[in-house]
Amino acid sequence: MSSQSVQVGIIMGSKSDLPVMQDAVDVLKELGVSFEVTIVSAHRTPHRMFEYAEKAAERGLKVIIAGAGGAAHLPGMVASITHLPVIGVPVKSSNSIDGWDSVLSILQMPNGIPVATVALNAAKNAGILAAQIIGTNDAQVASNLLTFKKGLKEKVEETATEVENMKF
Amino acid sequence: MSSQSVQVGIIMGSKSDLPVMQDAVDVLKELGVSFEVTIVSAHRTPHRMFEYAEKAAERGLKVIIAGAGGAAHLPGMVASITHLPVIGVPVKSSNSIDGWDSVLSILQMPNGIPVATVALNAAKNAGILAAQIIGTNDAQVASNLLTFKKGLKEKVEETATEVENMKF
Amino acid sequence: MSSQSVQVGIIMGSKSDLPVMQDAVDVLKELGVSFEVTIVSAHRTPHRMFEYAEKAAERGLKVIIAGAGGAAHLPGMVASITHLPVIGVPVKSSNSIDGWDSVLSILQMPNGIPVATVALNAAKNAGILAAQIIGTNDAQVASNLLTFKKGLKEKVEETATEVENMKF
Amino acid sequence: MSSQSVQVGIIMGSKSDLPVMQDAVDVLKELGVSFEVTIVSAHRTPHRMFEYAEKAAERGLKVIIAGAGGAAHLPGMVASITHLPVIGVPVKSSNSIDGWDSVLSILQMPNGIPVATVALNAAKNAGILAAQIIGTNDAQVASNLLTFKKGLKEKVEETATEVENMKF
Amino acid sequence: MSSQSVQVGIIMGSKSDLPVMQDAVDVLKELGVSFEVTIVSAHRTPHRMFEYAEKAAERGLKVIIAGAGGAAHLPGMVASITHLPVIGVPVKSSNSIDGWDSVLSILQMPNGIPVATVALNAAKNAGILAAQIIGTNDAQVASNLLTFKKGLKEKVEETATEVENMKF
Amino acid sequence: MSSQSVQVGIIMGSKSDLPVMQDAVDVLKELGVSFEVTIVSAHRTPHRMFEYAEKAAERGLKVIIAGAGGAAHLPGMVASITHLPVIGVPVKSSNSIDGWDSVLSILQMPNGIPVATVALNAAKNAGILAAQIIGTNDAQVASNLLTFKKGLKEKVEETATEVENMKF
Amino acid sequence: MSSQSVQVGIIMGSKSDLPVMQDAVDVLKELGVSFEVTIVSAHRTPHRMFEYAEKAAERGLKVIIAGAGGAAHLPGMVASITHLPVIGVPVKSSNSIDGWDSVLSILQMPNGIPVATVALNAAKNAGILAAQIIGTNDAQVASNLLTFKKGLKEKVEETATEVENMKF
Amino acid sequence: MSSQSVQVGIIMGSKSDLPVMQDAVDVLKELGVSFEVTIVSAHRTPHRMFEYAEKAAERGLKVIIAGAGGAAHLPGMVASITHLPVIGVPVKSSNSIDGWDSVLSILQMPNGIPVATVALNAAKNAGILAAQIIGTNDAQVASNLLTFKKGLKEKVEETATEVENMKF
Repeated sequence: MSSQSVQVGIIMGSKSDLPVMQDAVDVLKELGVSFEVTIVSAHRTPHRMFEYAEKAAERGLKVIIAGAGGAAHLPGMVASITHLPVIGVPVKSSNSIDGWDSVLSILQMPNGIPVATVALNAAKNAGILAAQIIGTNDAQVASNLLTFKKGLKEKVEETATEVENMKF
Repeated sequence: MSSQSVQVGIIMGSKSDLPVMQDAVDVLKELGVSFEVTIVSAHRTPHRMFEYAEKAAERGLKVIIAGAGGAAHLPGMVASITHLPVIGVPVKSSNSIDGWDSVLSILQMPNGIPVATVALNAAKNAGILAAQIIGTNDAQVASNLLTFKKGLKEKVEETATEVENMKF
Repeated sequence: MSSQSVQVGIIMGSKSDLPVMQDAVDVLKELGVSFEVTIVSAHRTPHRMFEYAEKAAERGLKVIIAGAGGAAHLPGMVASITHLPVIGVPVKSSNSIDGWDSVLSILQMPNGIPVATVALNAAKNAGILAAQIIGTNDAQVASNLLTFKKGLKEKVEETATEVENMKF
Repeated sequence: MSSQSVQVGIIMGSKSDLPVMQDAVDVLKELGVSFEVTIVSAHRTPHRMFEYAEKAAERGLKVIIAGAGGAAHLPGMVASITHLPVIGVPVKSSNSIDGWDSVLSILQMPNGIPVATVALNAAKNAGILAAQIIGTNDAQVASNLLTFKKGLKEKVEETATEVENMKF
Repeated sequence: MSSQSVQVGIIMGSKSDLPVMQDAVDVLKELGVSFEVTIVSAHRTPHRMFEYAEKAAERGLKVIIAGAGGAAHLPGMVASITHLPVIGVPVKSSNSIDGWDSVLSILQMPNGIPVATVALNAAKNAGILAAQIIGTNDAQVASNLLTFKKGLKEKVEETATEVENMKF
Repeated sequence: MSSQSVQVGIIMGSKSDLPVMQDAVDVLKELGVSFEVTIVSAHRTPHRMFEYAEKAAERGLKVIIAGAGGAAHLPGMVASITHLPVIGVPVKSSNSIDGWDSVLSILQMPNGIPVATVALNAAKNAGILAAQIIGTNDAQVASNLLTFKKGLKEKVEETATEVENMKF
Repeated sequence: MSSQSVQVGIIMGSKSDLPVMQDAVDVLKELGVSFEVTIVSAHRTPHRMFEYAEKAAERGLKVIIAGAGGAAHLPGMVASITHLPVIGVPVKSSNSIDGWDSVLSILQMPNGIPVATVALNAAKNAGILAAQIIGTNDAQVASNLLTFKKGLKEKVEETATEVENMKF
Repeated sequence: MSSQSVQVGIIMGSKSDLPVMQDAVDVLKELGVSFEVTIVSAHRTPHRMFEYAEKAAERGLKVIIAGAGGAAHLPGMVASITHLPVIGVPVKSSNSIDGWDSVLSILQMPNGIPVATVALNAAKNAGILAAQIIGTNDAQVASNLLTFKKGLKEKVEETATEVENMKF
């Protein structure tokens, strides 16, 4: 948790969430956004969470991505402390009821304290959304996003051609 | 939030939860257990929540009852800070999806930090459960619980007689 | 749909969503963020939706808030066209199955095209989230957000005192 | 996407949907209905989707079968553009919450723009339904459907005899 | 249940479904499609249902719209008997669990016997879908559908102008 | 709880269930089956429940109908004690989560101890099912059931004629 | 489908349901109740289903057990035709959404036509329930049920002793 | 089921629940709380359950932990008989519908008879909660809980350092 130039903080409740959250790391690198990664548990390290959230803005972070599963309180609690935009990734952890608990306990925040929730396990989309936020004032990142979108389109067009040429 | 002799702390995320949480108040009075009532919002007053939870044990509280709705983080966050038993009351608030969010975000706590969850809106049962906990070392409260249970039984028996005498 | 200086575009699938979406309007005004409001239906005016999404960035919008109910495709389709951050408000419309369809068809976007989803009917939180995004590069809006958060805290503290002084 | 004589267009959001959608292909062949297959993603290729939907009728297509998973917008968006009947196949893709999101975001279309939704992953039924629509004005296809129904019946009768002769 | 020229049969399990199913009637009239309406209960009049379904094609019907609630078997059973396309309308009747039973028991038909399911209570969409099917071989109905779609668009555009001129 | 000749025992967890359970009473009278009605709460009068279930067979009861809501244990616990068939009526009581808890805690009995579950609030069907069980060895009740079924059919036919004669 | 002395008819929609339904076979044998087994599909062999249901009573059957999955119409349709008690087994088939469709389309029958529903995949309980119905007028079967219940109890007591003697 | 000094009784409906319930055993040992373990089935050994619950308090037990799956009646029925606090562990057994039945039939107890419910399969949390209850009057156990909480925190901090040092 260091350098001033880091734009996005990626935190998660447990190291077991890392395989899911790695997708946010990868896409932020692809989109040219700087980030840091650490473990912050709302339930097992509440003071650490407070400190992380309280110092985030002054440390220069612009966006926080928080992933958690089950009764997932990390994104909402971080959002209760900082005024930065917080993106929540509901993780379908082993103790979750098919992901519903993760989704609802991140999404259904009361009025006053939003969490920008993405789909179950969709850490990649959390990374893209963070880049979109950075991109509202960073022409390079905005340009990277347009390239990224073009890449998505071209990949579909390739598979479309492939499928159209298949013999059914 | 005062006197040393208070046994049960009743907190809720918003004053709008009071009509539901009043049932805990009423049954604790009936069962002879002392209590205090206040508003503590995990999302709007996170520092207040921290302070309440951290001082609860040294202030002499034995049990905390916490009611909240929607993405209800109050019971779980209090449980993350104190080692006292925390009873969670999922409140079917106006911004809840039929109560499912309230239930799941209180019930589905990760291993290590339990919340004793009761039924949706069941503040009365939260009060009784708090009394049962107090009653494990308080003979008077235990005796009051037995009387309470006898009362439940007798009321059923009365309505049973009434119904058996109805003409269908 | 006019002036260059508008920061946030608020769109909704139907005028019947306006009573819900009004909360976004009100909070953006309170937080000092400029906005525009119009009706864009993904299903009944697909070309209009395309045009709105395609021109949003060049018109100077920074964020789009899109509310819709039932099989709510507006937020996701706008996000598929623009690279701006899109905030989705699931509306519990009359034809919705308890809001589940609205929530899932906005939240569960595929990898590549995020929608920042807020709670059911939580247009107020959509407005705050838009302000948080603007606030990442606008010191005045950031400061307004801190004032707003302080206001939330103080209101809870007032009701807490009120409840603590109640006679139970 | 070619010949004028094609009756049914089968599209899907991703090549990963093909193993599910293959069932539509197979049953259309069995029922003597001509078809084409390609990939059209509402979210990654929105312009391609527009073009496909807009030209479908003039190209001579009678019915469109669209399969998609998660926040599945393809069937509904195609239906918003064309006046042809659109059959939606909710696909239980890897990023779906047990298929509920796929089902609800296809089924719960607003008044004015229907999607003929079939069961989760039921591309075979989508194919049969397309044939039934063609069969309303094509005596050969109608006759093929009757033969198909007879086949279903006879297969059950065979297994019935088999089971009745088992020794329990 | 009479005249040869009727194109669409509208049936429902109970007269209490009529207020919902009326929307199908109204839109079919608007779209210039002939229809008949009657009550056929799968559970209370199984023989009547058999007879209705068996004679539908020879009576000249092209499409059947069937509405039912709870454990809604009418659409699926009619589809098991006729080879005509059957459109199912899940009705949120008084004995339904929030409509889920109606939706699932119509939608989740086994392979071989599709029901074209529309949204909960969406009889209007059932009517439009029936017209779309008729329209695959009836230029007048197809033209009516295009006019209908244009009307939807224009109504949105009007309300859009209205909202854009509101003072927020 | 008296006479030897009573065939069906109707019990419910609370007098507040009586408006729902009255339907069982009414249909049993219509079908010529004798019955008794009383209140037995699994949770508030467990001994009374034990006694009722243990003596049911020797008192001559043939079938027990048990209605309860929320975490509804009455039908299952009675079934655990008696070997008589037990029919469970899930009641959508005020403390129920849309009836799902009532349904699942009655229906999902473990292997070895069945409860014949009917639809939510469907006490009428519980009565008919009890009569069907009695009717397996009582020609008069069987005959009454056939008459009852005929009545259902005729009522549908009447409303069918009525609707067919309506002017749409 | 033969001999007059058969008491219970076990039917299922597909041979793939047999592994689940076998449990009904096994427990009926254990409880001394005669039975027959066959395949009857509501959707693929509607006439066969009608005939089976219409002749069941005159052929001497006392109870019908019907298993089906997905949009499971077999139990309810058989119940609509016969006045015998029908026990429904919701099967979690491969095309089912976690079993919810199977459960709801069997359980939620309209007033007038009950199906005695057992737990998901609980064919064993269906067999026991059928025996309980037979046992209301067959002392031998009633006695077998008491022995069966005693067996359940003794098996628990054995494992209880085993566990109490484990060293934790 | 013996010695006077045992503080916590751990019971479960079936030996197949033991792998889940073992977590309660392990954490109680770690926290220095004495316990006993046995099998008590509400449905297969109702008398044994009654006796266990009735004698629990006089035998000196302070808390009962009861685990069960499906239509899980054990925790609630034990709570109906004893006035001790009862902790319910919903077990995701093989016959459960994704755990929803286990959760709802334990959680949704009627007013008057609480069950302290923990997350699905969360026997570890049941053990910790039992220790928290014991700890309200046992300084050693309270101290053990504080040590346990410190351990949770330190483990997170270690993995945090580990992750911060990873090269992404």
